[in-house]
Amino acid sequence: MSKGRLEAFSDGVVAILITILVLELRIPRGADWAALRPLLPVFLTYVLSFAFLGIYWNNHHHMLHLADRINGGILWANLHLLFWLSLVPFTTGWMGENYWAALPAAVYGVVLLMAAIAYTILQRAIIAGQGPDSRLAAAIGSDTKGKLSIALYATAISLAFVNQWFSDALYIVVALMWLIPDRRIESRVTE
Amino acid sequence: MSKGRLEAFSDGVVAILITILVLELRIPRGADWAALRPLLPVFLTYVLSFAFLGIYWNNHHHMLHLADRINGGILWANLHLLFWLSLVPFTTGWMGENYWAALPAAVYGVVLLMAAIAYTILQRAIIAGQGPDSRLAAAIGSDTKGKLSIALYATAISLAFVNQWFSDALYIVVALMWLIPDRRIESRVTE
Amino acid sequence: MSKGRLEAFSDGVVAILITILVLELRIPRGADWAALRPLLPVFLTYVLSFAFLGIYWNNHHHMLHLADRINGGILWANLHLLFWLSLVPFTTGWMGENYWAALPAAVYGVVLLMAAIAYTILQRAIIAGQGPDSRLAAAIGSDTKGKLSIALYATAISLAFVNQWFSDALYIVVALMWLIPDRRIESRVTE
Amino acid sequence: MSKGRLEAFSDGVVAILITILVLELRIPRGADWAALRPLLPVFLTYVLSFAFLGIYWNNHHHMLHLADRINGGILWANLHLLFWLSLVPFTTGWMGENYWAALPAAVYGVVLLMAAIAYTILQRAIIAGQGPDSRLAAAIGSDTKGKLSIALYATAISLAFVNQWFSDALYIVVALMWLIPDRRIESRVTE
Repeated sequence: MSKGRLEAFSDGVVAILITILVLELRIPRGADWAALRPLLPVFLTYVLSFAFLGIYWNNHHHMLHLADRINGGILWANLHLLFWLSLVPFTTGWMGENYWAALPAAVYGVVLLMAAIAYTILQRAIIAGQGPDSRLAAAIGSDTKGKLSIALYATAISLAFVNQWFSDALYIVVALMWLIPDRRIESRVTE
Repeated sequence: MSKGRLEAFSDGVVAILITILVLELRIPRGADWAALRPLLPVFLTYVLSFAFLGIYWNNHHHMLHLADRINGGILWANLHLLFWLSLVPFTTGWMGENYWAALPAAVYGVVLLMAAIAYTILQRAIIAGQGPDSRLAAAIGSDTKGKLSIALYATAISLAFVNQWFSDALYIVVALMWLIPDRRIESRVTE
Repeated sequence: MSKGRLEAFSDGVVAILITILVLELRIPRGADWAALRPLLPVFLTYVLSFAFLGIYWNNHHHMLHLADRINGGILWANLHLLFWLSLVPFTTGWMGENYWAALPAAVYGVVLLMAAIAYTILQRAIIAGQGPDSRLAAAIGSDTKGKLSIALYATAISLAFVNQWFSDALYIVVALMWLIPDRRIESRVTE
Repeated sequence: MSKGRLEAFSDGVVAILITILVLELRIPRGADWAALRPLLPVFLTYVLSFAFLGIYWNNHHHMLHLADRINGGILWANLHLLFWLSLVPFTTGWMGENYWAALPAAVYGVVLLMAAIAYTILQRAIIAGQGPDSRLAAAIGSDTKGKLSIALYATAISLAFVNQWFSDALYIVVALMWLIPDRRIESRVTE
C-alpha cells in the first residue's frame, strides 16, 4: 500500500478543513466598525483552530516520515483522526458565535481531546507495524508532550463550566506547546 | 494515460466530499444542551456517511493498485462513481434533518445503491482492460460482498417505507461489513 | 517549471468545483415527494455541469500529456481557463433555480463559451511553446470539434431568448459530442 | 523534510481558496438583468481576488523551485502566508457587498498587505536556510517589486478612507505589476 496516497489524502482533507473554516466568518451586514466588532470572537477562535489544524498537519507530516509500511489498521486509524479533525469547523463556528457560553467551549475541547487520542492511536498503529526496532517509537520516547496535551484538554473541558476563559487559556497553552514541530522526530529524520 | 492523475483526482473529490459533509452540521442558535440535541440525528447520519466515503476511498485505493492500464472507459466509469458519491452530502443533510421520514431514508439508500453499482461497473471496466489473466478478477473472485451490498441496499430502500429503522440498521450492517479493507485484494498485493 | 504542479493545481481546482456544485442542491424543507419535485431542474442542471467539468478535466488531462514545456504564458492561460470554469457552480445554481427563464440559460452558455475559448487559447499557448513540430498541433489537426462547440454555444446563447429548451438541447449535444475522450490525442499518446 | 508535500499542501489550500471565492457570488432571486446588476461589484471584486490568488500561487511555485531545504521555520512561515490568504474569500465578500464603503476596502487591503509581508518572511526563511550563496537571494536581488507592493498596499489602505476608488485603482496596479511571473527567478531556473 502506498504511503504517498495516504499522505495526499490526509493533506487534502486538512487543506480543505483549514480553508472552509473561513466560511464560519460570516460576512457582516453593515460596513462600519460596529458591524465588524461582533466578528472578533469568531476571528480569534478561527486563529486558534487554524493553528491547531496547522499543528496537526505539521506533526502528521513528521510522523509519516518515520512510517515504513502502511496497513489496513493504519488507514483506519488515520481516517479516525480525520473524522475528529473534520468537526473542527463546526466547533469553531459554535464557540465563535457563543463566546461566553460554557457548553460550546467544552465541546470545542472534546473534539480536540478526541483528535489527540486519535493521533495517539495512529502513532501506536504505526509503531505496532514497525515491530520492536520501531524508528518512530525511538523518536517519540515517552511522548510526554502528547500525554500532557490530553491531560490539559481534559482539564480545559471541565473548567469550561467554571469559567470559559480558563479553557481558552489552556487551549492556547497547548497550541503554543506544539507550535514548534517535533524536534525529537526532526532530529531522527536528520540522522 | 497516467494512473497517478486518476488516483489524485479521485482522492481530491472524495477528500472534499468527506469534508463538506460537515457543512450539513448547521451551527445551532443557542449554546446549551437543548440547542445541541436536535443535531444528534444529523450527527449520526454524518458519522455513517463519513464511514461510507472512507470505505469507498479505501477500496478504491486497493482496487486501483491492481489496475495496470487506464483507458477512456475507466476514466468515465470513475467519473460516474464520483457522481453518485458527490450526492452523499445532499442525502446526508436531507436524511439528517428529517430523521423519522421514509423518503429521505430511501433516497439515501438509492444514492448508496447507485454508487455500489457504479463501483461494480468501474471494477468490470478495469478487468475488461486487463484481459483473461486479470489480477483484479482473480483477487475479487465471485465478489460476494459486492453483490450482497447491492441486495442489502435494495432491501433497505423498500423497508424505509415500512419503518425507517430497518433501513438504518441495514446501512450500518453494510458499513460494518466493509470497514475492513478488502483482504482478498490486500493479500494479492502482498504476493 | 514543473508540469506536475500545474496538473495537480488544475486537478485540485476542478475536483473542488465538481464537488461544491452539490452545495447548489439545497436541502428541501419537507420530506415527501412534493418537497423533492422542485429540485428536479436543479438536479438536471447539476448532471449537465458535472458532465461538462468531467469533460474538461478529461481533455485537459490528455492535452497536458502532449505538452513538453510549461512557461509563464501557459500558466496564465491555464488560470484563465480555471477562472471561467470556477463560475460554473454559480451559473448552475442560477439556471437550476430559474429553469424556465431565458437570461440564466444564456449566462450558463456564456460561461461555457468563454471556457471553450480559454481552452483554445491554452491549446495554442502549448503549441506555440512546442514550435513547428508540435506533437499537440499534429494530434489536434483542424480542431473541428473545438470550433463546432464554440459555434454551438454561441447559437445556444441567442436561442435562449427564443426558447430555453433549444439552448438546453444544444448544451446536451455539445456534452455528448465530447463525452468520448479525444481519440486523436489518445492515439498519438499510444504511438 | 519533503518539499513536495509542502508544495502539495499549499497548492491544495490555494486551489480551495480560489474556488470557494465563488460561493461569495450569491445566486440572485430573480432571473432578469435587474437581478444580475447588483452582482456586478461582487463579480469585479471576485475577478481581482482570483487574480491575486493566482499570482500568489504562481510566484510561490517559482520561489519554491529555488528552495533546497525545508525546515520547521519554513513550514510555519508558509502556514502564516496561507493564514492571510485564507481570509481573502471573507474580505472579497465583504468588499463586494459594500462596494462604496471605506472600511471593507481598507480591510481588503490589510489582508493583502499582511499576505505580502508573510510572503516576504517566507522568502527570508528560505534564504536564511540556504546560507550566503543562496540561489533565491541572487534571483530576487533587491526585491523592488515586493517592497513597492507593500508600500502601495499601505497607501491604498489609507486612501480607502478618502475615496474607495483610489484604493481599487492601486489594488489593480499591484495585480497588473505581478501578472507576469517573476522573470528574475524564471531566468535563474532556466540557467
